[in-house]
Amino acid sequence: MPDLALLLLDLLGIAVFAATGALVAVRKELDVFGAIVLGGITGLGGGVLRDLLIGSVPPAALVDWRYLITPVAAAVIVFVFHPAVGRMEKQIGVLDAVGLALFCVTGAVKAHDAGLGIIASALCGMLTAIGGGMMRDVLAGRVPVIFREELYATPAFTGALLAVLAAEIGLGPWTYVVSAAICLVWRLLALWRGWRAPLPPGLDRG
Amino acid sequence: MPDLALLLLDLLGIAVFAATGALVAVRKELDVFGAIVLGGITGLGGGVLRDLLIGSVPPAALVDWRYLITPVAAAVIVFVFHPAVGRMEKQIGVLDAVGLALFCVTGAVKAHDAGLGIIASALCGMLTAIGGGMMRDVLAGRVPVIFREELYATPAFTGALLAVLAAEIGLGPWTYVVSAAICLVWRLLALWRGWRAPLPPGLDRG
Amino acid sequence: MPDLALLLLDLLGIAVFAATGALVAVRKELDVFGAIVLGGITGLGGGVLRDLLIGSVPPAALVDWRYLITPVAAAVIVFVFHPAVGRMEKQIGVLDAVGLALFCVTGAVKAHDAGLGIIASALCGMLTAIGGGMMRDVLAGRVPVIFREELYATPAFTGALLAVLAAEIGLGPWTYVVSAAICLVWRLLALWRGWRAPLPPGLDRG
Repeated sequence: MPDLALLLLDLLGIAVFAATGALVAVRKELDVFGAIVLGGITGLGGGVLRDLLIGSVPPAALVDWRYLITPVAAAVIVFVFHPAVGRMEKQIGVLDAVGLALFCVTGAVKAHDAGLGIIASALCGMLTAIGGGMMRDVLAGRVPVIFREELYATPAFTGALLAVLAAEIGLGPWTYVVSAAICLVWRLLALWRGWRAPLPPGLDRG
Repeated sequence: MPDLALLLLDLLGIAVFAATGALVAVRKELDVFGAIVLGGITGLGGGVLRDLLIGSVPPAALVDWRYLITPVAAAVIVFVFHPAVGRMEKQIGVLDAVGLALFCVTGAVKAHDAGLGIIASALCGMLTAIGGGMMRDVLAGRVPVIFREELYATPAFTGALLAVLAAEIGLGPWTYVVSAAICLVWRLLALWRGWRAPLPPGLDRG
Repeated sequence: MPDLALLLLDLLGIAVFAATGALVAVRKELDVFGAIVLGGITGLGGGVLRDLLIGSVPPAALVDWRYLITPVAAAVIVFVFHPAVGRMEKQIGVLDAVGLALFCVTGAVKAHDAGLGIIASALCGMLTAIGGGMMRDVLAGRVPVIFREELYATPAFTGALLAVLAAEIGLGPWTYVVSAAICLVWRLLALWRGWRAPLPPGLDRG
C-alpha cells in the first residue's frame, strides 16, 4: 500500500478516535489536559498495542511527530468548539464507527506488511480498531462500548480480514477503501437499526 | 519440557480461562460476540502479556491457529450450552483455579526457556496466570478476583516457582504436574474453606 | 547519567509508588498479598510499560532483584505499620507527587539513552510516571487520579522534557534533580492550592 495513503488514513482514524476520547472527557467534565490525555490514549492506544504485538518498537505513535500532534489537535478542537455539550452519544457513535473502519484496515495491513499470517493480521487489525476505545472506556469508568453495543468487533474483524485477503492476492489499494466501507456501513447499520447478535439461550433482554 | 505436553496444558488452560470469560459475559447478558471477545481476552491475555514481557513477538496466541480456535470454541460451547444461567460463581471459581494452576506452570517454563532467571520466570508465570483474569474483570467492570479472593496470586507464584526450580535442577516434566497440582489444591482449599490472609492491623472485616 | 544515581532515584520512585498502591489496598481492606500485588503493579507498572515501548525486554523490573524487593518491602512496611488507617488521601497525594517527579525524569532519561528523540523520550517519561498510578486506580475500581486531579500529567511531561533537553545539550546530572524538583513543586502546589486547568467552555463545575 502506498505509504502516504496509509499514513493519511491512519492519521484520520487517530483524529476521529481522539475526538471520541475528548468528547467523553468533556462529558465527564474533565479539564483540557484530561481531554488531551484521554484523546491521545484513545487515538493512539490501539496502534501502540498493535506495534507492541508485531514487535515494531518504539511504536510509530511515539516517534513520529505527525502521530503525536494529530490527537492533541483533535482533542483541543473538540474541547474548545463544544460549548453546548448536550447528549452527544449519537455523534460519538458515528465518529467511533469511522475510526473503527479506518483502523481495522490500516492495522491489518501493517501487521501483514510485518510478515504476520492472514488470521493473525486480521486479529491485529481488529485489536488496533477496538484497543483505543477499550482503553478510553476503561479509563473513563465505563463498560467498554464493545460490550454494550452489539456487532462492534465483528465488522472490525471482517474489514480487517477482507483487507488482508486483498493484499494477499495482490489487489490494489482501492480494496482497502472497500474493506473499510464495508466495516463502516455494517457498523452504522447495526448502530442505527439496533441490530442484535444472538443473546445467551434462555435470556430475554427485551 | 516436551513441546507437545506444554502445548496441550497451555491449550487446556486457555480453554478453561476462556470459559470463565464467556460465563462472565453470559451473566452480564452480553451477546455471542461479546462472549467470544471476553473469552478470548481472558484465555489469551495472560499469555500475550508474558510473550510481550519476554520479548517473544508476535505472541504465540496471534500466530498459532490452535491458540486462536481454542478460546473461540470454549466460549461458543459455554454460550450455547448454558440455557439456565443461574448462580455460577462456584463453577467459575473452580475453572479459574484450574486455569491458574496450568498457566502459572506453563508461563514460568516458557519464561525460563527464554533465558530468564528463577525469580523473573516465576513472576512471569504468575502474571501469565493472573493477567487474563485481571483483564476479564476490569473489562467487565468488576474488581479483579485477585483482590476479592484471598490467596489467589500466592498459589500461582508458588506453583510457578516450584516449576522453575524443578527445571533448574533438571527434574523431569512430571514435576510440572506436581507444581500445578499444588497450586490447584491450595487455591481450591482457599476458595472452599474461606482461608484468609492477614488483614491490615486494626481492621476487622468480620 | 551515572548508573548508580539513576538506579537509586528509580528505586526511590518505585518505593513511594508502591507505598501509594499499598495504601489504596489497605483502605480497600485488602489482605497483605493484595497490598503486595497492588503495590508491585503501582511501583513497577510504569517502568514495565516504558521498557515495552522502547523495546527493552525483558523489563528491568522483572530481572533485577533490587527492582523486585523494593515494592514488596515498601508494601509490607505500609501494611504492617499502619494500624490506624484513617483518611490518608493527603499523604497518598504527596507520595504520589514524589513518585511522579522521580519517574518522569528517570523514564525520560532511559528512553533517551535508548536512542529515542526528544519528544518521544519526554512522552515515555510521562507514561512511566503516570502508568503505574493509572493501573493502580483502574485495578482498584477508581477513576484514575490523572482524571480527577488537575495538573497531573502536565508537570510530569514538563519535568521529563526538561531532563531530556538537559541531556541533549550535555548538562550534568544535577539538571535531573532540578527537573524532578520543578515537577514535584508544580504538582504539590496544584494539589495544595487546588489549581485548576481550563474546563470545557460552557461548563461550570463550581
